[in-house]
Amino acid sequence: MQELTNYERLSLNQITTDRLSLPEAADACLRAGVPGIALWRHKLAQMPSLAEARRLIRDSGLRVSSLCRGGMFPAPTPEERRKRMDDNRRAVEEAAELGTDVLVLVCGPAAGKDIADARLMVEEGIAELVPYAESHGIRLGIEPLHPMYAAERSVINLLSQANDIAERYTPEQVGVVVDVFHVWWDPALYEQIARAAGRIAGYHVSDWIVPTPDLLMGRGMMGDGVIELRRIRQAVEAAGYSGPIEVEIFNHAVWEMDGDESLALIKSRYLEHV
Amino acid sequence: MQELTNYERLSLNQITTDRLSLPEAADACLRAGVPGIALWRHKLAQMPSLAEARRLIRDSGLRVSSLCRGGMFPAPTPEERRKRMDDNRRAVEEAAELGTDVLVLVCGPAAGKDIADARLMVEEGIAELVPYAESHGIRLGIEPLHPMYAAERSVINLLSQANDIAERYTPEQVGVVVDVFHVWWDPALYEQIARAAGRIAGYHVSDWIVPTPDLLMGRGMMGDGVIELRRIRQAVEAAGYSGPIEVEIFNHAVWEMDGDESLALIKSRYLEHV
Repeated sequence: MQELTNYERLSLNQITTDRLSLPEAADACLRAGVPGIALWRHKLAQMPSLAEARRLIRDSGLRVSSLCRGGMFPAPTPEERRKRMDDNRRAVEEAAELGTDVLVLVCGPAAGKDIADARLMVEEGIAELVPYAESHGIRLGIEPLHPMYAAERSVINLLSQANDIAERYTPEQVGVVVDVFHVWWDPALYEQIARAAGRIAGYHVSDWIVPTPDLLMGRGMMGDGVIELRRIRQAVEAAGYSGPIEVEIFNHAVWEMDGDESLALIKSRYLEHV
Repeated sequence: MQELTNYERLSLNQITTDRLSLPEAADACLRAGVPGIALWRHKLAQMPSLAEARRLIRDSGLRVSSLCRGGMFPAPTPEERRKRMDDNRRAVEEAAELGTDVLVLVCGPAAGKDIADARLMVEEGIAELVPYAESHGIRLGIEPLHPMYAAERSVINLLSQANDIAERYTPEQVGVVVDVFHVWWDPALYEQIARAAGRIAGYHVSDWIVPTPDLLMGRGMMGDGVIELRRIRQAVEAAGYSGPIEVEIFNHAVWEMDGDESLALIKSRYLEHV
């Protein structure tokens, strides 16, 4: 299989260096020659202002591969659902302001026990958000999350679900985000990646460690686990995706690394395993 | 929805009282008026002999709802796969000896990174085991395990996969085991339960706790989590299953309970939530 030979498509998802502020992460990317960064809203909130964050990013020349995250649509009351929608509109505005064209959606868990109802709320939330996103030049990227997060983070757990929803819109309005950690085990993975052709809005890499130490914080550095990274990347490329490859790792050991060391390791693993 | 009004179908999966030996667990069931028990092979191995275990079970009058577990088919070498098959044949013999008609299959993880290949090894392993099981009056029950166990316990992660394999055989040869903990999140759950009509070889209950404390040991007592237990039971019954309902809970807090207390709690939660 074809190896990656340069870092043109590499993007640091900011959560991978969670101890770094946005200015620190941007500096680390520049020092390492990593051309892209994916931003998290809780990191933006630590900046003096959104304008300041925008200035920093524009001055850096870094490409913002995506903003994480909108979503969290299901809520127990109409009022709470309206608040979530307000927050989603703010996320769209921030994404546009920061110069990315993708807002990643983590769609949210059920408010109670009714997972089917929560899935309807997600569909309704996306339908409501699409026109606003479109008017800001923002594509919504539905990211299916691993089924182990169904009760706490997202009721969209399979790429087939993300495709089912995305196909109601144009590929420019709604796409899907393929994160290997969430989907690697799915028997329908390659079929669903092919189905998403023209609609893939992002590709995220990490690895699945064995034994898996923790539900949330157990992601591994590429090459440390069992995910067939190269095979999945080539499937995503065969489906027409040639955009940024985000490295997104929730793992305390990775978080405790020095930022420059972490980026050096990411770069070597990227060429070797992704 | 219709509530359960008695304990006729209740079966204690032995792992739920992991600190108890087989004689202790059997005694606890008899004291509590729980008519069924599901046995684990590592507990049988602690008995002086299989004959002794059989005598104990027959004398107790308890119904053995299943034996856990066969499976673990994928292995790196042909020799290792043969050893696994030998062990599966022993499991079949033990199941027959103990008077149950169901051997639960936990199909095993990939030996390396190739999950598709591992799934083929599972299919081949089941194909090889079926005639031997049939000749002993044993039905193989394919239990899909939650996708978070794909790398460590089973590459069969969806009820659709279990159905795909089971449908190659008669319902008496191969069935599927529905464990709510593994399948509750699946968007295709009710469709796949209906598809399994006549082929459901077991039904296991517990609950999915939020927040989820641990991948393996994080199962909850029925009623402590978000699983729509009654809705799933009724779907399973609509698919023609009226057999034992096993309570199978991997959880240190449950394991540390006194056996009689644990069974009393199981009984009350069973009527209230299952």
